[in-house]
Parts: sequence; C-alpha cells; structure tokens
Amino acid sequence: MGVSALIFRQLFDAASSTYTYLLACSETKEAILIDPVLEQVERDLQIIDELGLNLVQTPNTHCHADHITGSGKLKSLRPGVKSSISANSGAAADIQLQHGDAIKFGTLELRVLATPGHTSGCKSFYLPPVGANSTGLVFTGDALLIRGCGRTDFQEGDAGLLYDSVHSKLFTLPDDTLVYPAHDYKGRTCSSIAEEKAHNPRLSKSKEEFVEIMNNLGLPYPKQIDRALPANLKCGIDF
Amino acid sequence: MGVSALIFRQLFDAASSTYTYLLACSETKEAILIDPVLEQVERDLQIIDELGLNLVQTPNTHCHADHITGSGKLKSLRPGVKSSISANSGAAADIQLQHGDAIKFGTLELRVLATPGHTSGCKSFYLPPVGANSTGLVFTGDALLIRGCGRTDFQEGDAGLLYDSVHSKLFTLPDDTLVYPAHDYKGRTCSSIAEEKAHNPRLSKSKEEFVEIMNNLGLPYPKQIDRALPANLKCGIDF
Repeated sequence: MGVSALIFRQLFDAASSTYTYLLACSETKEAILIDPVLEQVERDLQIIDELGLNLVQTPNTHCHADHITGSGKLKSLRPGVKSSISANSGAAADIQLQHGDAIKFGTLELRVLATPGHTSGCKSFYLPPVGANSTGLVFTGDALLIRGCGRTDFQEGDAGLLYDSVHSKLFTLPDDTLVYPAHDYKGRTCSSIAEEKAHNPRLSKSKEEFVEIMNNLGLPYPKQIDRALPANLKCGIDF
Repeated sequence: MGVSALIFRQLFDAASSTYTYLLACSETKEAILIDPVLEQVERDLQIIDELGLNLVQTPNTHCHADHITGSGKLKSLRPGVKSSISANSGAAADIQLQHGDAIKFGTLELRVLATPGHTSGCKSFYLPPVGANSTGLVFTGDALLIRGCGRTDFQEGDAGLLYDSVHSKLFTLPDDTLVYPAHDYKGRTCSSIAEEKAHNPRLSKSKEEFVEIMNNLGLPYPKQIDRALPANLKCGIDF
C-alpha cells in the first residue's frame, strides 16, 4: 500500500498574527483546518474548494484570547464540518479532544498532546513523518512559539506547568520535527524542535529561570480578550 | 552517494508583504537568501547563525520597487557573501544572472529561468525535487503571484511578455511544483503550478484577455518606488 502524500498550506492573519494550517490527505481529499480565524473563513474556503478538498474538522489548539475562531462560521457554511477543542478548555465543540486522541483525515492522523500552561486546555497536534524522507510536523498553538512561548499571566496560565509541558511533550519529539506555532510577530513561519531546544531564549533555561522570566514580562492586557474569549467559548459564532 | 536534505525557511516582511527565502544544503551548510529585505537583515542573520549556516549568496529575483534589498547590508556584515541579480536588470551585483545559469549552494542548485514582463530583468529560480518523495520548488518573484501576478505598468512592464514568460517557463514545470512568490497580500504562503494554471484569475485566461486585464488595473503609483529603485540599482545600500 502506498503512502498518501500530505497536502499542506500555512495561512496567516495579519491583524492578529495568527497562523491557520490546512492539512489534507492527497488520496481521499479529506482536510482539516487548524486554528481558523473568523475574518479569514472566505479565503480559506476558496483554497479548500480550489484544491478540491472536503473539510471534515476544524481543530483548535486552545481557546484563543487574541482572535475569534472561524469554527462556528465554517460549520454554518459547511454543515458536515466538526469543530474540536480540548475537553478541559471549557469551550463548546462537536469533539472534545483528550491527550492521546487521534485527529483523522483520510489515511493520515494527528496525535493530540496535552501541553497546558498558557491555558489549562492547550493541546499540540503532532503529525509523524509521512513517507521515507519526510520529517514530522508539530502544531504547538501558544505553548511553544518560535524563540518564545505564550504568556502565562491570564486564562489559568501557569509558567511551571508550561515548562513541564514543553519539555516532556514537545522537546522529546525527534529533533528534526518542524514546529508550526499559532503565531509569529516577526515574519518567521516555522522552526524545529532542535532549534527551540538550543535557541529558545526562555525554554532553553532552567525551570526556575523560566518561571522568573515569565512572571516578569509586564505585558499589557490583551486587546481582543474581552471580545474573543466569550465568543470562543461557543465556537466563535458572533455573526 | 546520499542526497543532501534541503534546509528551507520562508520569512515575511509585514511592511512590504515581501517573502524572503532561506535555502541551505544540510551537508555543507552553505546557504542562500532569496530577496532579502533591508529592515529584516538582523532577523535573517540570527536564524542563519543559529542554524549554523554559512551564507554564500543573496539572489534577487528582480530590481524591486516596493522595498530595499538587504543584499548590500548583508555583504557589508558578512564580507564573503555575493549579491546576484539578472544581468539585464541594470542593477549592480557581484554576479549577473542569465537564463540557464545555476545558483549553487553546497550539493544543491537552483536553475535560473528568465521570466520577464513585470520588469525586463525578472528571473525565477527553480529547485528540482531533492530526494525520492519530494516536489520541486519555484521562486517566482513578481512574475507569478498566488492567484495574481506583478503589475506591468511601470519599470519596462510588458503584459504580453509576462504572459509568455509564465506560460512557457513556469506553467511547463511539473504540476506539483510548489510556487513561492515574492509577495502575498492575503496571508497565503505558497501555491502550486497546477493550482495557478487552473485558478489564477488572470493567467488562466487567453493572452488577449490577460493583456486587457493588465492594461486596466488602474493601480496607484507604488509608494516606495522613488526610494527603492535608485537604492536597488546599487545593491540596496542606503545606510
């Protein structure tokens, strides 16, 4: 039996610096859309349609505070689509994800990894290598960013827990695994586990130093949180 | 002899919506940086250094009118680096590229394709598949954008010539070749030759229709052209 090739597209929302990821199975055309953004739903559906794909699920890495998820709008426009998010995010969704679950699309599947700390419901999604010469991909949400990580000062944030999540669930993946985060604010599109283990200025430190760094970031209150959080607890439907 | 893996990073400059591409040979660590942006040189050098790469060349797809190239600054910071651009761009550079040339980095090489029409010096760079299960990549500059193309109403622009370039040099590449353009304004990061042949709203038309579309775009005068063009004719050095 041959190996289905992965169809993969990274998409960016400039207003919130959020990455959305389209993954599909080349054999069955089943597709998933990780962390869709409400304002980009038409763009994303155009690409899905032009590639001849059948969207089956919209997994959210966590209940975002900086933009409204496109899951609800996608479900209303494409009735077969299922939304999904962590069971312990407190948010409504068709599928409640647990650590160890598989998100299947055609012959491919993502493995759900619990990576709490930015929020208690944060999950990462790992796609093992597809085919002989490929590397794995991991979609890390806000748990692990390129040379950074999500803040831990609101939404049940816990710096020590985040450190343990990243070190036990992400830094144990193969070194060449490509890291695709939920955001980047400097125009970088991906990293690797080896890079972040060596060069992440926060997470390459000891746990004690990491907690000290995270407790002293002095970040402003998130601009979109009062609008985004209530909406994202119910699939982002606010239209 | 084994096949060297490609190290590949796509980078974005939000101010000009420009993509810069870092490509390197995993075996020798030689790297090239396609279309660097002056304001992003420090970011790009940090990634190059953290990945342990040795930057050897900064190929420019053309003489840009919307941002200043980082080639000159990179040369001043890393004396071994060579700048390159099309011989018929009219711009100064260490290496003058011609159709059919190879841009070598370690055991890998890009093939230079003449794709004039947006400017008379526009080149695309094609990386054939590396290894058994991979697809080729083509860096198309402003000749072919995702669902669009560069304007043809200034800088020796010629719509008919652009149409012929894309159809003869790019649309003849394998259908699964991934298209990496110099810009995208909607957060899309890549496309494929098959997608653009089928869904590019301009270039999927007849040549006559394409020329008609391009002659009636009614675009404003480029904001950065009076600053960028004179600088880019001499490697972008304006610091």
